[in-house]
Amino acid sequence: MRILITGGRGTVGSVLLRELESRGHHVVVCDVAHGVEEVGFSLRTDVESPNYARCDVSEYRQLERVFDVMGPFELVYHMAAEFGRWNGEDFYEQLWRTNAVGTKNVLRLQERHRVRLVHFSSSEVYGDWEGTMSEDVMDQHEIRQMNDYALSKWVNEGQIRNSILQHNTESVIVRLFNTYGPGEYYSPYRSVNCRFIYCGLRGLPWVVFRGHFRTSTYVDDTVRTLANIATTFKPGAVYNISSTQYHSIEQLSELVVKVTGADPKLVDYRNAEILTTRMKKVDNSRSVLDLGHEDTVDLETGISRTAEWMRRIYQLPVLARER
Amino acid sequence: MRILITGGRGTVGSVLLRELESRGHHVVVCDVAHGVEEVGFSLRTDVESPNYARCDVSEYRQLERVFDVMGPFELVYHMAAEFGRWNGEDFYEQLWRTNAVGTKNVLRLQERHRVRLVHFSSSEVYGDWEGTMSEDVMDQHEIRQMNDYALSKWVNEGQIRNSILQHNTESVIVRLFNTYGPGEYYSPYRSVNCRFIYCGLRGLPWVVFRGHFRTSTYVDDTVRTLANIATTFKPGAVYNISSTQYHSIEQLSELVVKVTGADPKLVDYRNAEILTTRMKKVDNSRSVLDLGHEDTVDLETGISRTAEWMRRIYQLPVLARER
Repeated sequence: MRILITGGRGTVGSVLLRELESRGHHVVVCDVAHGVEEVGFSLRTDVESPNYARCDVSEYRQLERVFDVMGPFELVYHMAAEFGRWNGEDFYEQLWRTNAVGTKNVLRLQERHRVRLVHFSSSEVYGDWEGTMSEDVMDQHEIRQMNDYALSKWVNEGQIRNSILQHNTESVIVRLFNTYGPGEYYSPYRSVNCRFIYCGLRGLPWVVFRGHFRTSTYVDDTVRTLANIATTFKPGAVYNISSTQYHSIEQLSELVVKVTGADPKLVDYRNAEILTTRMKKVDNSRSVLDLGHEDTVDLETGISRTAEWMRRIYQLPVLARER
Repeated sequence: MRILITGGRGTVGSVLLRELESRGHHVVVCDVAHGVEEVGFSLRTDVESPNYARCDVSEYRQLERVFDVMGPFELVYHMAAEFGRWNGEDFYEQLWRTNAVGTKNVLRLQERHRVRLVHFSSSEVYGDWEGTMSEDVMDQHEIRQMNDYALSKWVNEGQIRNSILQHNTESVIVRLFNTYGPGEYYSPYRSVNCRFIYCGLRGLPWVVFRGHFRTSTYVDDTVRTLANIATTFKPGAVYNISSTQYHSIEQLSELVVKVTGADPKLVDYRNAEILTTRMKKVDNSRSVLDLGHEDTVDLETGISRTAEWMRRIYQLPVLARER
């Protein structure tokens, strides 16, 4: 199958690329920066079969060119997005341009090329919902998204729903829950797992907000399920893609201390954070049933693997405590 | 009181400016184009007391400059927005930039300057809700916004709600219902009232979608109520600002035929339109109670006044039928 991944250089995309290629698909990736396997649009391409295109999805012309030059595609995994709630508060210009305009650009090209779409949404769309997050709770309940990032992801789902109604497009929405693992490069805006591990390895202090509960989903488990959609595509479906292993943020932090060997005094405990959901209880039965989703990596194993990868990437010593 | 109106050159803003000035307020307007009462930021201003600044609210630096040079303000009427559902579909880049990023810019400056805000929302936020539109139906019911314009206006309400929670800002949200009247210049993206009258006067055919019901609110009635908020400001309040005179789009069209003297054969009747609400039943009791809202202009009178204004502005002959 000929597949495009937008934003395919990210934490999930880079693993998804490998998984889809290993299953024999022809995969093209686009993302915002230049890269080694990149096609030259107006100049000679040095590599033999470039599978990467530089493209900012918020620029329609650039996205159209990817379809024209690298296509046709049968399926698009649209994961190009500004990620994270504080990132969205601090960089809301990029957030709205990439997430709202970028997704609308993808939809316009989907409508023209009649390609199938897998859109990447987020558990953040469940906003202030404190019950179990099953995919259709927002059909029955009014949910308030608590930050611009969450609002933008919910807007995307609305744009897709309206495009299905108006243009009969075929789309699947996946809502990812705290996916983590090797490949997530540190910044202060990344997932809590990434940040804690990085701080642990570097011997930097980190803050733990008490009373928040999450599931952490190891990237390989997420990606196997995502790749299954290529062959089990139900137009209009919405899926939570999540582990069901719950943990508090305190527990996550304690595991990071154990795995990295960091000094427990680096951890600064504080009370609940604003603008986010305290408890994320997820119902993932639909992705288990339709897509064969499986949890195969427990939190401690996942953190260990991520820490190993991060040590290598950032060339950090094994015993951070001794620094 | 020192007041800023963003987007104050529009249909409602230009009338609101006159009303607020007549009540003795000091009012500054900003909007995207140059104008006669405009301040020169880096050059000599010719007019004596400029009350207008060119500013695209999606450009933070330009908005900040208005606050720095023309302020301080005690109250901001934030009405700068891309307007209309088909406009939002055809020009979604501008929509998201102005509405989502622009409003976030306004909020950031509100948080810094601790100014009060009246934010202009739309009846479109009621989406597919078919019952009576009272301000808090979306607290109890999940409502689906049916186009990007509606989504962007609902995002704005979420941004404001979250700013109130996070930064203790003081804001009032007004949801306008099909406000029309002199001052609304024709384009194919304008309100149905404006478009029908223009077509009637020009002898152009127009399309009437059957089975849609609306209230039309004459701009002077809307503006009197809006101006009252300056002195009756309840932080956190949300108001429907609407007439309660219901009419079908067919009835509106028939009145336009009568008032303009257009040939009834110009009207092309079709079945219900997609991406919009069929029936808008509104509860305006809160704005009546708190803000003294009153309907004083019936639909036929309002259409006559709008048609007179439009004839003058576009230099159209009195008897379009004879063209």
